Amino acid sequence: MMKFKSPPVNSLSLEFLTEFSISLEKLENNRACRGVIITSTLPKIFSSGLDITEMCGKSVEHYTEFWRAVQEMWLRLYGSNMVTVAAVNGSSPAGGCLVAMSCDYRIMAENPKFSIGLNEAQLGIVAPFWFKDTFVNVVGHRIAERSLQLGSLHPAPEAHKLGLVDELVPEEKLMEKAAAVMAQWLALPDHARQLTKTMMRKAVLDRLVAHREEDIKNFVTFVSKESIQKSLRMYMEMLKKRKS
Amino acid sequence: MMKFKSPPVNSLSLEFLTEFSISLEKLENNRACRGVIITSTLPKIFSSGLDITEMCGKSVEHYTEFWRAVQEMWLRLYGSNMVTVAAVNGSSPAGGCLVAMSCDYRIMAENPKFSIGLNEAQLGIVAPFWFKDTFVNVVGHRIAERSLQLGSLHPAPEAHKLGLVDELVPEEKLMEKAAAVMAQWLALPDHARQLTKTMMRKAVLDRLVAHREEDIKNFVTFVSKESIQKSLRMYMEMLKKRKS
Amino acid sequence: MMKFKSPPVNSLSLEFLTEFSISLEKLENNRACRGVIITSTLPKIFSSGLDITEMCGKSVEHYTEFWRAVQEMWLRLYGSNMVTVAAVNGSSPAGGCLVAMSCDYRIMAENPKFSIGLNEAQLGIVAPFWFKDTFVNVVGHRIAERSLQLGSLHPAPEAHKLGLVDELVPEEKLMEKAAAVMAQWLALPDHARQLTKTMMRKAVLDRLVAHREEDIKNFVTFVSKESIQKSLRMYMEMLKKRKS
Repeated sequence: MMKFKSPPVNSLSLEFLTEFSISLEKLENNRACRGVIITSTLPKIFSSGLDITEMCGKSVEHYTEFWRAVQEMWLRLYGSNMVTVAAVNGSSPAGGCLVAMSCDYRIMAENPKFSIGLNEAQLGIVAPFWFKDTFVNVVGHRIAERSLQLGSLHPAPEAHKLGLVDELVPEEKLMEKAAAVMAQWLALPDHARQLTKTMMRKAVLDRLVAHREEDIKNFVTFVSKESIQKSLRMYMEMLKKRKS
Repeated sequence: MMKFKSPPVNSLSLEFLTEFSISLEKLENNRACRGVIITSTLPKIFSSGLDITEMCGKSVEHYTEFWRAVQEMWLRLYGSNMVTVAAVNGSSPAGGCLVAMSCDYRIMAENPKFSIGLNEAQLGIVAPFWFKDTFVNVVGHRIAERSLQLGSLHPAPEAHKLGLVDELVPEEKLMEKAAAVMAQWLALPDHARQLTKTMMRKAVLDRLVAHREEDIKNFVTFVSKESIQKSLRMYMEMLKKRKS
Repeated sequence: MMKFKSPPVNSLSLEFLTEFSISLEKLENNRACRGVIITSTLPKIFSSGLDITEMCGKSVEHYTEFWRAVQEMWLRLYGSNMVTVAAVNGSSPAGGCLVAMSCDYRIMAENPKFSIGLNEAQLGIVAPFWFKDTFVNVVGHRIAERSLQLGSLHPAPEAHKLGLVDELVPEEKLMEKAAAVMAQWLALPDHARQLTKTMMRKAVLDRLVAHREEDIKNFVTFVSKESIQKSLRMYMEMLKKRKS
């Protein structure tokens, strides 16, 4: 089991992403480890997504390194040979939603105050094409088109109805249920399951691999724009005010 | 707001399509206009689709010009940077369904007498590949495959269940609801929303752009066949009889 | 109508597949025959799928011939110009599910003891890419990903909920319903319906045609592995024990 614990909100900073990728790599190479449950130790939040401070007022080199780390995490998680189960015990916007969607199965606490979605558009930014590809693979084209354009954060019951999460359980049963799902998936012969997973996900993984440098360039150019920097600063101000 | 008003049934004639495309272009270039609601001023009909008289007993040049106008309208509408909401206040077969499907959001009057669908197969003709691509993007492959083969016209409640329309409301609330949806979509920052829309629709738009002349040729060859001309004449006779 | 009758379980042996393909070809060339209902004369089983004895302890030449016959059957059935309706009157795992999915419409007896699905992963083998493509076309990417990885056999009510079958009817009404559905589909003009079907299925059919020899090679290499032979032998032992 892998527990996200990066107070206050498990935001995906460069450091966090790097550690996450290294942990995944270690587990992947550990033949005794066949599956991983991803959850959060923090109350009410699974992961708040990409750390906006990493995108604000930093150098081109920093943006480049940061974005490569985001890509790396996703390539490892979405392409993992292990069984990956997300136990979503809190809200999970943007990059947090990406982490959950990249797992094989998503169980969410049935609390309607918890929401999940790719809300980038709300911040004036655009989800990268591979966030979109992952999203389309989970919920289909139409739901993805609407949800991405509106930057929707779906409360747990709605997320379940849309197929964005596979199952809702009472919060106190979440880990028990995740363990049961893991046991069910681990009952399958590894080799056949892994090849099947690769068959389903390869096209989308390959697309990022083929366009990785271009995608970094796009991100760096985009995030370096003064208008985007301004949006992000305003968003951070708003978050600070909300907290206090 | 754009109101279709071309009695008796808002059929998409060459003239109508040309005006529609010009209006869209003007609105697109008008920075004050960020969204458009498309509806009909006629009772019971949103749009009856392509005008069959344009396909019957005319010259190759006419067919060519007509089909290019159909393509042009779709390229502009499906690729519009504006928020596009269809307020479907009546039946909407074939090309009428295409117009609705090309918008960002579809609200339909919950009258089960109103139906919507790509019913080309019923007339012995085949929906072009880009009608099909648009349809698949909205309802998915399986529903599209069955519905296209049967040329189904889905009553409003069924269309809603299939995801062909997003929402049903009582007829008298239709415009009010459309305005509310528009306000919701316009609350998003334009730039991020537009780029997201482009990301979702580009592949399908590009496919027609790449095969535009070939698609015109196919249409002209198909519609020029004596057997198709006969089918269309019979269909028009039937419509005339039904009216009287 | 085509009735599978190959006791005890309609398994798709080389002989059965060859006869099936020849029958399809004959019907296809018979202009009086515009549609075919596929069902089973055996109780409780529609088809048990590929005959495992054909994959066990045989020569490379035999595996090659067998796999080519599986491909041939699917290319003919999925690409058929006829209306094809599956009247699924019993369980339908693996290749049996492929047969049903390749038809235009699936009606299943609403007996929850009957199940259907691509359960290859349970046997330690991987469904070929064109089984997967067919599956994705029917149920979409997400359901296919989960179901294929788990090798799920879905009881009839669940299969219906997932969209894997179109309709459930009481077992005694199955043939009556299949005939009614056939009549509905045959009411459409053949030519438009056939072109529409081709438009929907061509991409997936072409993909196998383009990779046919490679796919045979993959199958032969895979099935020749000692580990796979062992799995298959164990599975056959288990089936034998279950029977006695």
